[in-house]
Amino acid sequence: MRLYSKEKIQQVIQLNSKVITEVESAFTALQTKKVTMPPIMRIDIPASNGEVDIKSAYVEGYDSFAVKLSSGFFNNPKLGLPSANGMMILIDTTTGEPKAVLADNGLLTDIRTAAAGAVAAKHLSREDSRTVGIIGTGSQAKYQLEALTNVRPIDQVFVYGRNPERALQYKALIEKTFDLRVDVKETPSEAVSNSDVIITTTPATEPVLKAEWLHAGQHVTAMGSDAQHKQELENDVIKKADLVVCDVKEQSMMLGELRTVSNKEILDQVHELGEITSGQKPGRSNDQQLTICDLTGTGVQDTQIARYAWELLNSKEDDSNE
Amino acid sequence: MRLYSKEKIQQVIQLNSKVITEVESAFTALQTKKVTMPPIMRIDIPASNGEVDIKSAYVEGYDSFAVKLSSGFFNNPKLGLPSANGMMILIDTTTGEPKAVLADNGLLTDIRTAAAGAVAAKHLSREDSRTVGIIGTGSQAKYQLEALTNVRPIDQVFVYGRNPERALQYKALIEKTFDLRVDVKETPSEAVSNSDVIITTTPATEPVLKAEWLHAGQHVTAMGSDAQHKQELENDVIKKADLVVCDVKEQSMMLGELRTVSNKEILDQVHELGEITSGQKPGRSNDQQLTICDLTGTGVQDTQIARYAWELLNSKEDDSNE
Repeated sequence: MRLYSKEKIQQVIQLNSKVITEVESAFTALQTKKVTMPPIMRIDIPASNGEVDIKSAYVEGYDSFAVKLSSGFFNNPKLGLPSANGMMILIDTTTGEPKAVLADNGLLTDIRTAAAGAVAAKHLSREDSRTVGIIGTGSQAKYQLEALTNVRPIDQVFVYGRNPERALQYKALIEKTFDLRVDVKETPSEAVSNSDVIITTTPATEPVLKAEWLHAGQHVTAMGSDAQHKQELENDVIKKADLVVCDVKEQSMMLGELRTVSNKEILDQVHELGEITSGQKPGRSNDQQLTICDLTGTGVQDTQIARYAWELLNSKEDDSNE
Repeated sequence: MRLYSKEKIQQVIQLNSKVITEVESAFTALQTKKVTMPPIMRIDIPASNGEVDIKSAYVEGYDSFAVKLSSGFFNNPKLGLPSANGMMILIDTTTGEPKAVLADNGLLTDIRTAAAGAVAAKHLSREDSRTVGIIGTGSQAKYQLEALTNVRPIDQVFVYGRNPERALQYKALIEKTFDLRVDVKETPSEAVSNSDVIITTTPATEPVLKAEWLHAGQHVTAMGSDAQHKQELENDVIKKADLVVCDVKEQSMMLGELRTVSNKEILDQVHELGEITSGQKPGRSNDQQLTICDLTGTGVQDTQIARYAWELLNSKEDDSNE
């Protein structure tokens, strides 16, 4: 068994169209293959304002699967440390032997989460989407944008963050890193109303996106809520949408934006992203639809990205042995 | 974060009275401290006749806790590989940072499981116990015996295994390693009837121990059943016992020997081992009691042994730096 550091992993993996295709195939597998995905194991450490989550998924026929530990300790910033930590352990499905510990410190989660956003945008946003409105200024605000540019011809970003200084830092970072123009907006409605694609990436516990700001033809990816106390979308957003999609319905109803939806008719019409990537259900079918995708994060994405990272790490070692 | 191999861990930890005291304190903590111990996460890989279990426990006030992966892949022996694999990840409870990966390959589980047997024997068997009957010839048959000799003056072992050849191998191994006499018995009843302490350590799915073989003064530790399809003790064994103890009642009722017990009166009288180690309930109170302890394995043992192993590994490094 090998231990790979974040630095090693960073050298081999990029947030490119190949990674997005990998994550897309994970969603397809979720619908077309037999997948064992146990409920998330969660350990809360209230004294440190922390939590550790453990996720896993086995896809029948795959020769390995991942177990992921990820943590958020929200007193860390005061200690000068990042709040997130994490690692993935890749296990051989023939023998149970651990093949590798990927001490990626959350990098692979960031990548697979952003890639899922791109998969949603690829199937649900208008093909000519040029503008994106982002609510939130954290690390996913950057990763989601980077992933989106792989599937849509984005050239203009509108960003809103509660903390104006962090929004300006975000603008500086994006304009330095990518060939994109970023306008910081003073209200979320301004970031939303003129955007083809909207991404909410906040830890909000009260809705940050209102239905009245939305109009025909837009696509919204909400990826912030992944716990019972979180919510980014006003209920009316779901009601107003023509097409509502999520990664895993059961999970979205427990931890995501479907948690507060009680209308059975609406719930019955929600598609899972894998139904669309596999072709079982249509994605966007015209330019007038308002589409929504709620992402809560799934173990099958972790298994896919861990397998892919390990493949890249191995092929790099093969190269250097030549 | 450091990765420690089984070889490194083996150099620092022994199955001695210190380890047994550590595991005893884990059971006490389970009763006297606030412990977060989520249900076991289990992933089955039927195609390989395999399973991966994930356990964890956080004890309030501890500065670290463990997440354990353990697997059993029962086609492995045909491939010339051991069926068990495993590792523990020790996580800092202040920051969530992984402190160490203990790639112990099941060694620490073997040690903490056997140590729990010794804790049970210390509180439940007669102090003058000299003879032990062991049903089963696997690795725990050795570890349980080794642990027991730390707490009781054992000098005679009776062993029964379904496979006579493996029973002879066990005899040879034990007599070579310890100052003990081992008699291989042809029936389980012969191994049981003249023993002060009885240990069942099998993956049996049908009872291997009958009530009619037992008599006053004996103590039985059943540590084989840890899944819904396993059972080592005939129901009448529980009925006949004067004192029934288990590690975690809820778990034993799901995965252990209490699973098939429906008599509420009997269930109400079952003690948890931590109630006895903490002094809340009495252990054996006279030489005539027939006592039973069912062990299914708990995350808090893993947290305790991982913390202890890490402490030993660190103090060894400190030594070598001097």
